[in-house]
Amino acid sequence: MNIKEEFELYKNKGLHIDLSRGRPSKEQLDLSLPMMDILSSSSDYLSNGIDTRNYGCLEGLKECRDLFSPIIGVPSNNIIIMGNSSINIMYDQISRSMLFGVCGSTPWSKIEKIKWLCPVPGYDRHFAILEHFGIEMIPIHMNENGPDVDEVEKYISDESVKGLWCVPKYSNPSGITYSDEVVKRLAGLSPKAKDFRIYWDYAYAIHDFNKEEKLLNIYEEAKKNNNEDIVYIFTSTSKVTFPGSGISLIGASDNNINDIKSHLTIQTIGYDKINQLRHIRFFKTIDELKKHMKKHGEILKRKFDIVESILSRNLSGLAKWSHPKGGYFVLLEVKGIASQVVERCKECGVALTAAGATHPYHKDPSNSYIRIAPSSLSDEDLKTAMEVLCVAVKMEHK
Amino acid sequence: MNIKEEFELYKNKGLHIDLSRGRPSKEQLDLSLPMMDILSSSSDYLSNGIDTRNYGCLEGLKECRDLFSPIIGVPSNNIIIMGNSSINIMYDQISRSMLFGVCGSTPWSKIEKIKWLCPVPGYDRHFAILEHFGIEMIPIHMNENGPDVDEVEKYISDESVKGLWCVPKYSNPSGITYSDEVVKRLAGLSPKAKDFRIYWDYAYAIHDFNKEEKLLNIYEEAKKNNNEDIVYIFTSTSKVTFPGSGISLIGASDNNINDIKSHLTIQTIGYDKINQLRHIRFFKTIDELKKHMKKHGEILKRKFDIVESILSRNLSGLAKWSHPKGGYFVLLEVKGIASQVVERCKECGVALTAAGATHPYHKDPSNSYIRIAPSSLSDEDLKTAMEVLCVAVKMEHK
Repeated sequence: MNIKEEFELYKNKGLHIDLSRGRPSKEQLDLSLPMMDILSSSSDYLSNGIDTRNYGCLEGLKECRDLFSPIIGVPSNNIIIMGNSSINIMYDQISRSMLFGVCGSTPWSKIEKIKWLCPVPGYDRHFAILEHFGIEMIPIHMNENGPDVDEVEKYISDESVKGLWCVPKYSNPSGITYSDEVVKRLAGLSPKAKDFRIYWDYAYAIHDFNKEEKLLNIYEEAKKNNNEDIVYIFTSTSKVTFPGSGISLIGASDNNINDIKSHLTIQTIGYDKINQLRHIRFFKTIDELKKHMKKHGEILKRKFDIVESILSRNLSGLAKWSHPKGGYFVLLEVKGIASQVVERCKECGVALTAAGATHPYHKDPSNSYIRIAPSSLSDEDLKTAMEVLCVAVKMEHK
Repeated sequence: MNIKEEFELYKNKGLHIDLSRGRPSKEQLDLSLPMMDILSSSSDYLSNGIDTRNYGCLEGLKECRDLFSPIIGVPSNNIIIMGNSSINIMYDQISRSMLFGVCGSTPWSKIEKIKWLCPVPGYDRHFAILEHFGIEMIPIHMNENGPDVDEVEKYISDESVKGLWCVPKYSNPSGITYSDEVVKRLAGLSPKAKDFRIYWDYAYAIHDFNKEEKLLNIYEEAKKNNNEDIVYIFTSTSKVTFPGSGISLIGASDNNINDIKSHLTIQTIGYDKINQLRHIRFFKTIDELKKHMKKHGEILKRKFDIVESILSRNLSGLAKWSHPKGGYFVLLEVKGIASQVVERCKECGVALTAAGATHPYHKDPSNSYIRIAPSSLSDEDLKTAMEVLCVAVKMEHK
């Protein structure tokens, strides 16, 4: 059977498989079900003397901040626990900067042009936020150690450049973790704009498949340079407990946290402390939390091994792909034919993120990158989807 | 014992009683504890085929929208269930309007002056949001049927007037419910600014002490005039289940909901559906929900009866106050001496909301209004606080 015949065979199978989003699988969601037994009508709802069932405690429970402090590497007094979505925190932070500026700077909405540095390939939701706010995106080349810091340094001499997206560990979508040297250089950046911030989306802080890939603590490094205002650190438990029903948080310097709180106190009556309590009582310690993540890692490793084995069996020499040790994505590089491959897969009922989604304005000038998100599929569907993808690449490969 | 001696007696008691915020009491919080037994590790987490534990369903569970639809009087397809704080929805809605405009209008941040109509006495958090955004507040006289609509109609011929705050039922702080005629006239407003909106903060939609005080459905009334874009309706379960761990929602016209969703889809991955499910399964039907509210009402009535009886025993002829049939506040009117009374209370260790808090920019030109929030106190503390307040009024009364 030649490739064309194989393709036709898949096309006629009536498949409906979605390989596009980094959603946890049912098997992973089940891991956190015991958390739903943690609180009941007879539980003690006090945390450090605070009745978690009532108003108050804008910054979040101390116990909760203490639990996440070693994970993001920021003192618990410099953490605010927020709602269920870290993307929401990032969006709000940019929205706030547009209207009110950053720590007293000119509101960005009053500046004619605001620009932002976007390592590519990158995360489509990050780019969508900037596009929404009309912020000009400047692509920065990513290599296997992180973004090209020489390029970053060049651009930040421009005062209209106000931010840099980073997914520093198991980067979305390339899966790499920034090297110590890259983190050190980013922590030492000296931008023209005093309201320039690194948005450190530490989404996969503890999302290792088995062995932990260490990331240098950017907050500590920045502190050494008296530069700690330069970074906001975000994370959430969306892929630890339940997406949409987890908790999210920001860690930052005193100046930044005070700036944020001055807005938050007007914006909200506070966040869901019962859910914070549920998380604290479920995990108890960081060791327990890491044990829990090991179970996620095992499930994910099985999926990523399927991807790796099917890609290497079929596409060696035809394409390149990443070999992440954690996170949710594999990046496939098929020079010049990404959109065609995605279209071929669609014809067979296999949905992939649109080609270009990894780039600002949905435009990958090389038309080469495809993000693979294997987590949500059954092993069987994943195998089928990957076989389809490989057939599609072979079809289009010149 | 004369008043001065009585005052000194209280002053030396070392009291610490907070009569300032509308927080539910522990007794009220306990009413919702059974909700914490509703979901466990063995529960079914599907709602209309949606796994509530995963991403998706930005607008919120249909079952949840269906439950709240008759409460706010808006079809469930015109509702979005959001996070834990309705103030957060209102803030975000104004923030969005500043940056992006309303349904395609000019962003308010690009307009030199934005003004807002503020019925007074009103809710301090509403005013704080406007002050934060630099929106000019225009006080509108409140009478016992709602805001003075003649005044409202006069001001909305000015295109820079973009909004009107309303707490239409058991108004914060005066406790009144808008009359049918006021609701009808508001629903028929024809403002110069096409992006003018009534912010209908329906915080106390089902918060009756015993008998329900009916409020006309503004959405239906506006629809009759083909004017349904004029109103956003907000509510939350902060004072139904748990403050900070409830759900909140917005109801609005198709145009408004589509406008909001176009931003939300960028801002967040969605809201906490497990908590939505917990609420649905706990209440099941609107009748069950109303039964639950009856229990709140009984507790609150007991508190408000204490306030009424101590005020009428001490201050008849010296002051006026409201006699609400629901909600969380009593408004005390002490002509020209409000700040002095609050200060006297403070000397005795009884905290009240600052005089002026009921007015824009914290300035009550008549220095007459004091908001009393009795809900959170024990009966005993409440009695003491009210006695202190009465002594303070008598001290300052000329």
